[in-house]
Amino acid sequence: MTNTTQAAFLLQLQHILPTDRVYTDPVDCYAYAYDNSRNYHSPIAVVFPLTIEEVQAVIVLCNEHQVPVVPRGRGTGTAGGSVPEAGGVALSLERMDKIISIDPDNRMAIVEPGVLNQVLQDEIKPVGFFWPPDPSSAAYCSIGGNLATCAAGPHAVKYGVARDHILGLKAVTGKGEIIKTGCYTSKGVVGYDLTRLLVGSEGTLAVICEATLKLTPLPKFTGGITAEFVDTESCAKAIAAIMAQPYTPSALEFLDNGALTLIRSRHQNLLPENARAYLMIEVDGSQQEITEATEAILQACQVAGLIEAKPAHDTKALWAARKALSPLLKDIAPKKINEDIAVPVSHLPALLTGLEQLAAQHQISNVNFGHAGNGNIHVNLLVNPDNADEMKRAYQCLDEVFSLVLSLQGTLSGEHGVGMAKRPFVPREIDATTIGVMKSLKLTFDPNNVLNPGKLFPA
Amino acid sequence: MTNTTQAAFLLQLQHILPTDRVYTDPVDCYAYAYDNSRNYHSPIAVVFPLTIEEVQAVIVLCNEHQVPVVPRGRGTGTAGGSVPEAGGVALSLERMDKIISIDPDNRMAIVEPGVLNQVLQDEIKPVGFFWPPDPSSAAYCSIGGNLATCAAGPHAVKYGVARDHILGLKAVTGKGEIIKTGCYTSKGVVGYDLTRLLVGSEGTLAVICEATLKLTPLPKFTGGITAEFVDTESCAKAIAAIMAQPYTPSALEFLDNGALTLIRSRHQNLLPENARAYLMIEVDGSQQEITEATEAILQACQVAGLIEAKPAHDTKALWAARKALSPLLKDIAPKKINEDIAVPVSHLPALLTGLEQLAAQHQISNVNFGHAGNGNIHVNLLVNPDNADEMKRAYQCLDEVFSLVLSLQGTLSGEHGVGMAKRPFVPREIDATTIGVMKSLKLTFDPNNVLNPGKLFPA
Ligand SMILES: Cc1cc2nc3c(=O)[nH]c(=O)nc-3n(C[C@H](O)[C@H](O)[C@H](O)COP(=O)(O)OP(=O)(O)OC[C@H]3O[C@@H](n4cnc5c(N)ncnc54)[C@H](O)[C@@H]3O)c2cc1C
Ligand SMILES: Cc1cc2nc3c(=O)[nH]c(=O)nc-3n(C[C@H](O)[C@H](O)[C@H](O)COP(=O)(O)OP(=O)(O)OC[C@H]3O[C@@H](n4cnc5c(N)ncnc54)[C@H](O)[C@@H]3O)c2cc1C
Repeated sequence: MTNTTQAAFLLQLQHILPTDRVYTDPVDCYAYAYDNSRNYHSPIAVVFPLTIEEVQAVIVLCNEHQVPVVPRGRGTGTAGGSVPEAGGVALSLERMDKIISIDPDNRMAIVEPGVLNQVLQDEIKPVGFFWPPDPSSAAYCSIGGNLATCAAGPHAVKYGVARDHILGLKAVTGKGEIIKTGCYTSKGVVGYDLTRLLVGSEGTLAVICEATLKLTPLPKFTGGITAEFVDTESCAKAIAAIMAQPYTPSALEFLDNGALTLIRSRHQNLLPENARAYLMIEVDGSQQEITEATEAILQACQVAGLIEAKPAHDTKALWAARKALSPLLKDIAPKKINEDIAVPVSHLPALLTGLEQLAAQHQISNVNFGHAGNGNIHVNLLVNPDNADEMKRAYQCLDEVFSLVLSLQGTLSGEHGVGMAKRPFVPREIDATTIGVMKSLKLTFDPNNVLNPGKLFPA
Repeated sequence: MTNTTQAAFLLQLQHILPTDRVYTDPVDCYAYAYDNSRNYHSPIAVVFPLTIEEVQAVIVLCNEHQVPVVPRGRGTGTAGGSVPEAGGVALSLERMDKIISIDPDNRMAIVEPGVLNQVLQDEIKPVGFFWPPDPSSAAYCSIGGNLATCAAGPHAVKYGVARDHILGLKAVTGKGEIIKTGCYTSKGVVGYDLTRLLVGSEGTLAVICEATLKLTPLPKFTGGITAEFVDTESCAKAIAAIMAQPYTPSALEFLDNGALTLIRSRHQNLLPENARAYLMIEVDGSQQEITEATEAILQACQVAGLIEAKPAHDTKALWAARKALSPLLKDIAPKKINEDIAVPVSHLPALLTGLEQLAAQHQISNVNFGHAGNGNIHVNLLVNPDNADEMKRAYQCLDEVFSLVLSLQGTLSGEHGVGMAKRPFVPREIDATTIGVMKSLKLTFDPNNVLNPGKLFPA
């Protein structure tokens, strides 16, 4: 774009929205240049629409001028999905933040995309509900972002992910068309399931402008369990055994020795002394269910290598260690390579021991933790980006991690998505023909390739 | 197609598959001319592939010759989805009926599409699981058909529908490409969600050749409740109250006065004498959950107009009345108009009283029953097709039923789908722009419009 055409474009943009809802000053724009992936690219403008019609007007204009437009919730994504790497306009949904309705009788709520996950939870809790997708970033991320990435968190093991808790959407396609998907009933099969096609599409097909969410009644009671193991392998066997018995925990989170060591270094007394692998488990339901599930899970933990498994009476304290971890990791390794793989739970022993071997072999220190009940492990390779040799070893290691994951019938991303970060690896998981079909879907929704161009697909 | 080109086409078809897996004799073909919708149109051939490559070869050939190809499970669909109305080839998946693997540790099974729903249930029950989609036709319908229609049954109110219990697919697109969607993990977000786009697409986008299903642990115990009411309105209020409290029943089925009268006429002693509206309710879980849920549900039934609500100790007997109904309806009104609408449960009182008023106004006798917990009601208009005046009134009535449903934020089909039967009404529920997007998706998967052409979309 030449300076003159850019100026002409920006002028037209300023006709669509009032001044306070179009940023063009590079200083203002810079706050919208990055997300949690540590990729940076400034947009030429940031817009803050308030209605679906305004979203449409922006997208239509961007089509006319062939200017990229990148939907953005709150920029907490870790894959670079909302980074305007091709320039163009950052379309921030943060001011479309109204909860339109809460309908406890039908267990539904209608929200604008900019509503924060935690704000919604706080509003629906008093009427007896929660919305199951619970990323650790709940306080900062938007429902629109949750849907666009198909986000999930610790409770996914029992309650599922974003796509399981959505009934309908209003959205603007990359072409600039307003569409309405799904229905306001708990069942419905008229037409194609566009709702779930948009969920997880990372802002490459359409901009979500309104969502009808399915709410879940709050569990009556919750209980906790912790389990310590002498090593990762025994712990992984316990995870597989827990998931093979019929009582599904409502959370089953894992910390490896690297994670434990890190937490111990800053927080005394938060963790048992000898554990080299640790499980934090939550169960919910009636008191009887909790009693029975606790018994069954304690039983499943009885593998060789168990140090101790016991009920945790203070369920809030249970999560303290897990919560302490993320900031610590950022602290000690601001440029860590952070992956988000998943394997079938029965393959967790092979995965976790394999990860340890690969790290040792490539002399990379690593920290693994995550949503073990879904086989979804956050793999962190702690690297110093100024050390070229280490970086080379780290990428070699990562490559072998992905091969291991795929050989164990796994997937390269359990919840963070592809964005920019995982693009090169997509063809290792998805065959060329299927990628081809996905690319033609992209073209159908966005024939001029203006909506979040370049994301999700290998170049 | 001229006779010569048709003969040439059939010859090529016979090169792809052995004689015993290509029917061309009209007598043999006739068994594949209809489904449960009472629409008939014979295919020119029926093929029985055994592998995905054979499915592909048939579809490629049909593309070359521009011959329609209609996927068919077991033809139990009620919307005409598998009827070859445009002629061409019926592609029966019934011989691809292997259960490829059952993996209790990961709560998954891989099946070919021709496996009958009940056959799968019988295989996974001994290892402690069920697959929640439970259409009443389970003994006769295929998993492929269940997925293609996004089928469900009484247990959907607690456990959801087919799209909630699928992890991945292998399929052949209308273009003849083999694609592999989803993953073998309980979480995964790499690429677009093609899995759920194919679920519910009624065989118009791709032929499902293999499915990775998510299995659910069997509940420990089940309990039953019945409730009788003086009229539909009070019953509908109780349904709404049951769904507004936190204990979700595992089934909540409704019979109206028409249904009760019909059942009483053939089966003595199956039903209480005075009830003019009736609920059959199931709860499941631990004994404590059942006790608590039963109490809460009995409480929710305490509306003006309740005759009696009580626990049903014989849970098998509970379903006898419901099971008796379908064959009776076929008996007395073989050509009944049979709809499958759904509304938000809080609008059930308005829907059910509205249905009674419309039937009275148009002098049409009707029977309403169904999956009340999902607001999903089977509306049956009992008509004599030889009575032109009655038919006219019936269609007028149906039209107003649909208007009522849509005015109550409902959908025209909760589980049966569009097929041929509901095509003309689709534009009343889905706006033109959104239908346009669906049509371009269809073209992407099936550019020559050979795969189940004409289905699902208004002409
Ligand atoms: C500390 C921390 C913890 C985290 N924990 C988790 C976790 O447990 N589980 C998890 O799943 N994720 C987690 N994440 C990642 C992130 O928070 C989630 O992906 C979240 O859903 C992103 O929401 P957002 O509003 O910030 O979206 P953004 O980061 O702004 O955008 C994410 C993607 O969605 C698109 N998008 C955003 N809004 C819309 C819209 N309205 N319409 C169309 N496309 C849109 C963007 O283009 C982009 O591709 C974590 C992140 C952090 C920083
Ligand atoms: C007595 C009775 C009770 C019923 N109860 C219920 C109920 O409770 N809930 C419910 O949801 N339905 C119910 N149905 C409807 C029907 O049984 C379901 O829709 C069932 O899922 C259809 O399965 P099928 O194998 O018979 O498919 P078919 O009727 O053969 O096909 C249905 C549709 O799916 C497509 N299709 C089939 N197989 C494939 C494949 N492998 N790949 C791609 N497309 C395919 C066909 O083209 C067609 O469009 C009932 C039907 C009867 C007769």
